[in-house]
Amino acid sequence: MIEANKLKMQLKCPMPKLDFDVITLGHGSGGVLTNKLLDSGVFKILSNPLLDERHDGALINLEGKTAFSTDSFLVSPIFFPGGNIGELAVNGTVNDLAMCGAIPKYLSLSFIIEEGLTMTEFWEILLSIKCACEKAGVTVVTGDTKVVEKGKGDKIFINTSGIGSIHPKANISSKRIKIGDKIIISGNIASHGMAIMSVREGLQFESEILSDTTNLNHTISALLDTFGDGIHLLTDPTRGGIATVFKEIAQHNGVGIDIFQSELPIDNQVSNACELLGLDPIYVANEGLFISFVDESIADDFLKTLRNDDNGTQANIIGTVVETHPKQVIMESVIGGKRVVNMLPGEQLPRIC
Amino acid sequence: MIEANKLKMQLKCPMPKLDFDVITLGHGSGGVLTNKLLDSGVFKILSNPLLDERHDGALINLEGKTAFSTDSFLVSPIFFPGGNIGELAVNGTVNDLAMCGAIPKYLSLSFIIEEGLTMTEFWEILLSIKCACEKAGVTVVTGDTKVVEKGKGDKIFINTSGIGSIHPKANISSKRIKIGDKIIISGNIASHGMAIMSVREGLQFESEILSDTTNLNHTISALLDTFGDGIHLLTDPTRGGIATVFKEIAQHNGVGIDIFQSELPIDNQVSNACELLGLDPIYVANEGLFISFVDESIADDFLKTLRNDDNGTQANIIGTVVETHPKQVIMESVIGGKRVVNMLPGEQLPRIC
Repeated sequence: MIEANKLKMQLKCPMPKLDFDVITLGHGSGGVLTNKLLDSGVFKILSNPLLDERHDGALINLEGKTAFSTDSFLVSPIFFPGGNIGELAVNGTVNDLAMCGAIPKYLSLSFIIEEGLTMTEFWEILLSIKCACEKAGVTVVTGDTKVVEKGKGDKIFINTSGIGSIHPKANISSKRIKIGDKIIISGNIASHGMAIMSVREGLQFESEILSDTTNLNHTISALLDTFGDGIHLLTDPTRGGIATVFKEIAQHNGVGIDIFQSELPIDNQVSNACELLGLDPIYVANEGLFISFVDESIADDFLKTLRNDDNGTQANIIGTVVETHPKQVIMESVIGGKRVVNMLPGEQLPRIC
Repeated sequence: MIEANKLKMQLKCPMPKLDFDVITLGHGSGGVLTNKLLDSGVFKILSNPLLDERHDGALINLEGKTAFSTDSFLVSPIFFPGGNIGELAVNGTVNDLAMCGAIPKYLSLSFIIEEGLTMTEFWEILLSIKCACEKAGVTVVTGDTKVVEKGKGDKIFINTSGIGSIHPKANISSKRIKIGDKIIISGNIASHGMAIMSVREGLQFESEILSDTTNLNHTISALLDTFGDGIHLLTDPTRGGIATVFKEIAQHNGVGIDIFQSELPIDNQVSNACELLGLDPIYVANEGLFISFVDESIADDFLKTLRNDDNGTQANIIGTVVETHPKQVIMESVIGGKRVVNMLPGEQLPRIC
């Protein structure tokens, strides 16, 4: 985050004087006002040769195995401690591509704006998108802007889709998970969800809980360089938290998963906040976090390398793939008891990403 | 449309008995309910090996020049004469790719659902998506489903992004437009906009005005096979109508455009409806319509070929690229007068696509 903020400062891209302060339905007409909005904002900040073509789509060159991913973001509030919906939308799709073992390259960017969003808010979001793209090394090449009436949306929803080239050494697939695989988490759990929740509930802590939103692609790429196909599966536990991800993997692949609660890294304040609100952190959403299923033989080296990365300082081995209890996830608690872990049953924190 | 409806009948895919009738916030949690929704609907209807992998993104093989496009659809009402938001979302992105001279291949599909949407509505939309994909020859390979609270969305918004391979004979770019180019429209204007408008305004006509939503990719592909780089630019005049598209092209490329109103094909009822509502059809949205800028030397043959295609029976040469009045679009009216055509100034029909 600090790095992204620094980048934002460097941009020195103050908003130009415009003859409108808020976005209206007309800005989604496809006509004069849409062009005005795009000229004054999107194309100014995100300008690059492919986007500037302004055709119905972008022409890109791709070779070989490619990953393709999409995500719509409708987090509320759109500005939260540690980030905003703009960088979340870039990082989210960048990370989904990275989880496929891809090197993210091109993004599409589609806005659904509720009339009444201020240009100041939109400008701030665009700047964050720009920064997040630069940090991740991706380019927005095509886009779309629509506006809905007041009360038919909520400030702004953003869809990003992304394309990336599969890393030459990557061989990521849930089919490659095998008994004995070590499960490694890259850092503290539940930070993003609790950052959002603390704003919504008006909770005050000694220091603010920040979202962990960040791009993971450079970290993943470096790990693939070193460990190649020793990495069997990568996944980022966003909505539904780590519990849901583990259960999905166990269920779809017919394997058992053992998790050790005592090994789960979590920030003290986040843990306290969860307790205060009666939330189990294994169900709380994460953004800049990933889980690796790696071959037992490389697990220790993998962990050592990951801990040397800015995105992995709190990394830990938290579990194992086991033969017993197929399709089940069992968590050994801090005091030694065992419990079955299922997916998030209802809805804990709507509009978390 | 008739063809798509036939296809839908053939699907014989009745909705299974479910233990829920409406979509709730929990269906967007990422947990149990999201899995239930996806298992019972999306994965059942759209199933294919790439989508069934259920990873964060899809792995595809691409070679050479590729087009990438995105669009969010928020048409209201979601069911309208001649189609619904599902097929619109597929056709829209398929056509954007076709306009780049690409053969559309893969789609991403992202839903933003307002809680309260019924499963019957969602099922109908999914079936239409399936049919539209089959008709266009594209596959949904990755997706996302989110739910927002009542009053923070409007039934359903759909984003599709698409990837296609550039046709080997295509060389489509606004830079290739030149003085003397003939401008050919593929069919009747203003049908989609007036279909939506007639529902909203409760207008009754002798026969219903139907949206022209359809996929244009096979038509374009056949034209590229025959005419190759004689086709300089392709564009589909959706939001803002043909007027806005012409003005954008003239402005961004510094050329003049002459249009002959008498040559513009329009359905009688659509024309009457426009008059009744005081709308100029050149600003009304189209969906299954495209405009080609072609070399003067091939214009007549191009028109003849296009008229033999189901999507081109009403095609006509409607204008020329001229040296005089650069950046200006001039329309010669039916009675011989001339008027300057600008982009759609405000908003005519919000939520048209």
